[in-house]
Amino acid sequence: MGIVIAVDAMGGDKAPAEIVKGAALAAKDKRYQIVLVGDEEKIRAELDRYQGGPNLTIVSAPEVIDMHEAPAAALRRKRRCSMAVAAGLVRDGKAGGFVSAGNSGACMASAAVYLGMLPGVERPAIAAVLPTRQGSCILLDGGAVVDCSPEMLLQFAIMGNAYAAALFGKTNPKVGILSIGEEEMKGNNLTKASAALLRSAPSINFIGNIEGTSLYQGEADVVVCDGFVGNVFLKASEGLAELIVWSLRQSLKRSLVTKFGALCLRPAWRSLKRLSDYAEYGGAPLLGVGGVCIIAHGRSNALALANAIRAAGDAATADLVGGIRNGLEESGLVKPCKAKAV
Amino acid sequence: MGIVIAVDAMGGDKAPAEIVKGAALAAKDKRYQIVLVGDEEKIRAELDRYQGGPNLTIVSAPEVIDMHEAPAAALRRKRRCSMAVAAGLVRDGKAGGFVSAGNSGACMASAAVYLGMLPGVERPAIAAVLPTRQGSCILLDGGAVVDCSPEMLLQFAIMGNAYAAALFGKTNPKVGILSIGEEEMKGNNLTKASAALLRSAPSINFIGNIEGTSLYQGEADVVVCDGFVGNVFLKASEGLAELIVWSLRQSLKRSLVTKFGALCLRPAWRSLKRLSDYAEYGGAPLLGVGGVCIIAHGRSNALALANAIRAAGDAATADLVGGIRNGLEESGLVKPCKAKAV
Repeated sequence: MGIVIAVDAMGGDKAPAEIVKGAALAAKDKRYQIVLVGDEEKIRAELDRYQGGPNLTIVSAPEVIDMHEAPAAALRRKRRCSMAVAAGLVRDGKAGGFVSAGNSGACMASAAVYLGMLPGVERPAIAAVLPTRQGSCILLDGGAVVDCSPEMLLQFAIMGNAYAAALFGKTNPKVGILSIGEEEMKGNNLTKASAALLRSAPSINFIGNIEGTSLYQGEADVVVCDGFVGNVFLKASEGLAELIVWSLRQSLKRSLVTKFGALCLRPAWRSLKRLSDYAEYGGAPLLGVGGVCIIAHGRSNALALANAIRAAGDAATADLVGGIRNGLEESGLVKPCKAKAV
Repeated sequence: MGIVIAVDAMGGDKAPAEIVKGAALAAKDKRYQIVLVGDEEKIRAELDRYQGGPNLTIVSAPEVIDMHEAPAAALRRKRRCSMAVAAGLVRDGKAGGFVSAGNSGACMASAAVYLGMLPGVERPAIAAVLPTRQGSCILLDGGAVVDCSPEMLLQFAIMGNAYAAALFGKTNPKVGILSIGEEEMKGNNLTKASAALLRSAPSINFIGNIEGTSLYQGEADVVVCDGFVGNVFLKASEGLAELIVWSLRQSLKRSLVTKFGALCLRPAWRSLKRLSDYAEYGGAPLLGVGGVCIIAHGRSNALALANAIRAAGDAATADLVGGIRNGLEESGLVKPCKAKAV
């Protein structure tokens, strides 16, 4: 049977062409059973270009939410939109996870409405995986919740902890709070109040404040912050990486010698591109909802989408949602299920 | 006579050795008259290594504020510390500006206490200059004020505006607010309230929200934000640039071919280093105080310090403080001096 992943074929700047192409790419791995959700005719037209196997199927959804629509209102109006139908497949147990590169606000709303929130979680968080000298670091929230309370940052820490354990095999991950100095007194009201809360959480290996420089040096496995700050961090990094690639490209153009140098340096260049290229990362999971949801970049090309599908497959295989549920129970933030049934 | 710049010789991780070396480097330009402030004996011992000319002098200051001392308390206790004496030279008209790589909180406090705040400014802001595809962008506040009001962001915009005009010759600079989406509704309470204020300020060419990606593409000349967010932005950029340089260096080590490639690519490599290297930028001016104050990075080496001295010289020559004062008056935030005298 394999791992079933529902893909919102209509979401993203390059949908449905690049989305379908990405799905076809991912479907070469026969462990995946990919369900493309959206306008059947358009999807089939794209699918005809690739050698689709029996592990690529279509589920029809007549409506699409546009990139610029107000999320909640659009979702109320368009109950049969592609991302809602994809989320519904996960809710009904017909898919192990869903992926969308569409309107990210509407995607989060779809996940919250159709999959529900896990007990103990007030708001979901986008978990971004950043490269570091030691491997990787999970930063959350990457932009789901703009104004956060200290309690939310504690929930993010517990969810990030479970993600690091389930997907990266880290035991006792080091958890920090993104701030502007390592000393405890440095930071704003939110970071100071959150530090007190995280320090007293028994299931968290809290290492204190972390700055961006230390994050990229690999000093923490999980870093929490509010969604405004997290999104600023991600866009600063993305923008600078793009600038560096652009600027190197400009100076490489200058002479034959540098062109020759560039040829010799291909492997190094590729590793820089990989650092800067969101396509390699393939989308961030939305943590805190009752199923696997991967939010892909609106600009996703086929490669990025194929990676997002793999990310969804990995999360489903590792039972990420179960891991987070356990983490929340162990932390004492929620009563275990048995108690609930009484 | 030249431009007199007072340098806190005792401030910084590598003080006084690198500070004195940097001052000697800057003093090769005979337009500068550099006053080294601190422990006379130690400064002279370092100065003996270089061919110091008549444009390098010493002013004694018996006390030093440590990097880890609480700024305000330390400044109250050590009235004769090197940065306070340096700031005092500016207040007394004996220097056109001062530079310190020491405890940055104490440096800001020294500037505020000894130079005073400009009328109409509640709190000072650190203005960082970032490279972009179009040239440069001024980001403020880079970390002086953690929790800001919309009124402060308006003051930052007016000060950044004057800085862009005075130092970069920009007419009608494009001013944006750092946020997490270009649309007006995207952002947090602070960005939304500030946008309303900036839009109605007649002297500001307000272009709306700016994301980190657009900032590095060069879409704005001045970008304002609170000091927490600004500092997160700067440290994310610094950390990623360091990671990229490190990672390229790792992959360059791998084979003879890549080593040869690296040799051909020297100019490109240098341009990347320049992008990532704070030493090239040489410190950020503190805007809003009644004199020129340049806050250099604690890790400053001689080159960084020489650049910080030049930055102070440029600010003094361009009458940055006068420009900001005018900007504040024109904006209507303060009454012109004449009115004040009545």
